[in-house]
Amino acid sequence: MDYGLLFGGKSFEHEISIVSAIALKEVLGEQIKVFIFLDGAHKFYLIEPKDMRSQLFSSGQYKKCPELSLKMHGFYTQGLLSSKKVIFNTLINLIHGADGEDGKLASLLDFFGVRFIGPRVEASVLSFNKHFTKMLAKEKGLNTLPYVFLEHHDGTALKHMDYPLIAKPNRLGSSIGIRVIQEERDIAFGLDEVFEFDSQVLIEPFKKGVKEYNLAGCKIQDKGESAFVFSTIEEPQKKDFLGFEEKYLDFARTDKVSKADLSPALEKKMHALFKALYDPLFVGAIIRCDFFVIEGEVFLNEINPIPGSLAHYLFEDFAHVLAHIDLPKPTPIPITYNYINQIQKAK
Amino acid sequence: MDYGLLFGGKSFEHEISIVSAIALKEVLGEQIKVFIFLDGAHKFYLIEPKDMRSQLFSSGQYKKCPELSLKMHGFYTQGLLSSKKVIFNTLINLIHGADGEDGKLASLLDFFGVRFIGPRVEASVLSFNKHFTKMLAKEKGLNTLPYVFLEHHDGTALKHMDYPLIAKPNRLGSSIGIRVIQEERDIAFGLDEVFEFDSQVLIEPFKKGVKEYNLAGCKIQDKGESAFVFSTIEEPQKKDFLGFEEKYLDFARTDKVSKADLSPALEKKMHALFKALYDPLFVGAIIRCDFFVIEGEVFLNEINPIPGSLAHYLFEDFAHVLAHIDLPKPTPIPITYNYINQIQKAK
Repeated sequence: MDYGLLFGGKSFEHEISIVSAIALKEVLGEQIKVFIFLDGAHKFYLIEPKDMRSQLFSSGQYKKCPELSLKMHGFYTQGLLSSKKVIFNTLINLIHGADGEDGKLASLLDFFGVRFIGPRVEASVLSFNKHFTKMLAKEKGLNTLPYVFLEHHDGTALKHMDYPLIAKPNRLGSSIGIRVIQEERDIAFGLDEVFEFDSQVLIEPFKKGVKEYNLAGCKIQDKGESAFVFSTIEEPQKKDFLGFEEKYLDFARTDKVSKADLSPALEKKMHALFKALYDPLFVGAIIRCDFFVIEGEVFLNEINPIPGSLAHYLFEDFAHVLAHIDLPKPTPIPITYNYINQIQKAK
Repeated sequence: MDYGLLFGGKSFEHEISIVSAIALKEVLGEQIKVFIFLDGAHKFYLIEPKDMRSQLFSSGQYKKCPELSLKMHGFYTQGLLSSKKVIFNTLINLIHGADGEDGKLASLLDFFGVRFIGPRVEASVLSFNKHFTKMLAKEKGLNTLPYVFLEHHDGTALKHMDYPLIAKPNRLGSSIGIRVIQEERDIAFGLDEVFEFDSQVLIEPFKKGVKEYNLAGCKIQDKGESAFVFSTIEEPQKKDFLGFEEKYLDFARTDKVSKADLSPALEKKMHALFKALYDPLFVGAIIRCDFFVIEGEVFLNEINPIPGSLAHYLFEDFAHVLAHIDLPKPTPIPITYNYINQIQKAK
């Protein structure tokens, strides 16, 4: 396959996406023909494979690379007299966080008819916004932890909860901005910190020592058959919770993982829950579901619609999965002028 | 105010948007400086005000108008050697249905930094998808009718329901594709018809003679104060349900409506429910909520995030509302390279 790889983005996870892209280049090698960087000013740049070093971006040197325009059917370089299309078969959206996971890039690529791997606009909005993920999980019958959703800096609703609590910016990934609130008197300060990242905050009980499991997967089309592919289920190694730096390093992983020690029944349960969430909302994306297991019950923690370097290390044959991922077919929409013509006739 | 008006779109409601735009031109007159038409091939065209007749579009003549590119901060005409920005203060998104209401245009305008009136990407996705609207309503504590959500053409779940039922394409507006299923033996045929429009179908009990009320509104900023503006509540005149042709004519309305005969308590209730839904999700848009009243209880039927010609006829001073609508402020996102720099130092 000839992939294009889109990374960067105007997001708190901008750096993470760069590291993630460099890691995926290691894995896919020359299968990636084209690297497209989106900077913080929403400009696209064409990056030569040999230039894919983090320093190119941190130094601002990338600005000397050719700028690209997104137009119908692709990205184009602009010469003096003509524009030239950048050639790839399928674009991988590897922009973590805002732009990439909030529905904006999905919309742009869809609108301009660019074939891409990644969550579509509905899937993006429902997984990027943690509150919406709760709504989706409830609708699909999945367990989630109880929560309080705040849109204003008012901790009254938290006064009589069981501490500690964990407060998360509602629309941010990679553990950025997350704070543990140990006791009631820490509410004001804790919320202060989290509200710096988002105007919406989701608060849950913070359960220590809970077992966490990560399962990635997608739907593929292989020899005319549609099927689910699941990754190895991993029990992530962690302290109380992964902070930004640990998660960051996580995005640079290139080694394979070992399988979590999990009963077949629980594994089967997680596969079933993954399917219920995935199909058809997330078709076209490789996603990672993070589950908690508490007293034998599986809880959905969150859905990561663009996991770091696509969680390639969780799959046995990642290149095969990527090459066969099922992409949503656009609904044909006929444009007609029947009613306008009718009115004009009646005039 | 100097508005731009964006209309058309690749959608089953393409024609409706044209009619809606022509009606809004009648109302706002020279306040609209620029008309931008999006055609079924996703090309943007600059339309001269004097050319705003439906025949320009139905005949394909619009293709002789200057084509526009959407780039950072606006729409541009492309000359041989230079491009020129089309000048307006705020763009009104008047694309009904797909493109306009499904989050795609919201994403594009947001991404390219174009100031606009209309639902943002989250608001679009949660109101365009009727199933998601049900989830949102439940989360916010609003009554909605019971429903069955189908993603496959399998009517088993409908066998023992109380008939008649109403089956709706999950992601389509303006009553397009809606079918009433009178009895069990009509299930297969009825679903056939609805599945032609969408791969997802929402089915509800079809209650005859239910009172329906439409309430439009938005949040405005006036003299430094934030406030809600509500429209007159209208009881739409209708047959059993409005078909496409009636709705279509509805989009061309220019006359004011008379206030529905409604108790102050019910009116107050609808205002409260509107506020609960609107704030902050729909900030930046003039939306219309359609409510049912059944045995004194208010039920949310649907949220229309871009009502026909912005439901101007429901407002006492529409121009004032439009000029003062509260637009969401973008969250500042600093792009830093702290971690990349740290890693490079450590090397």
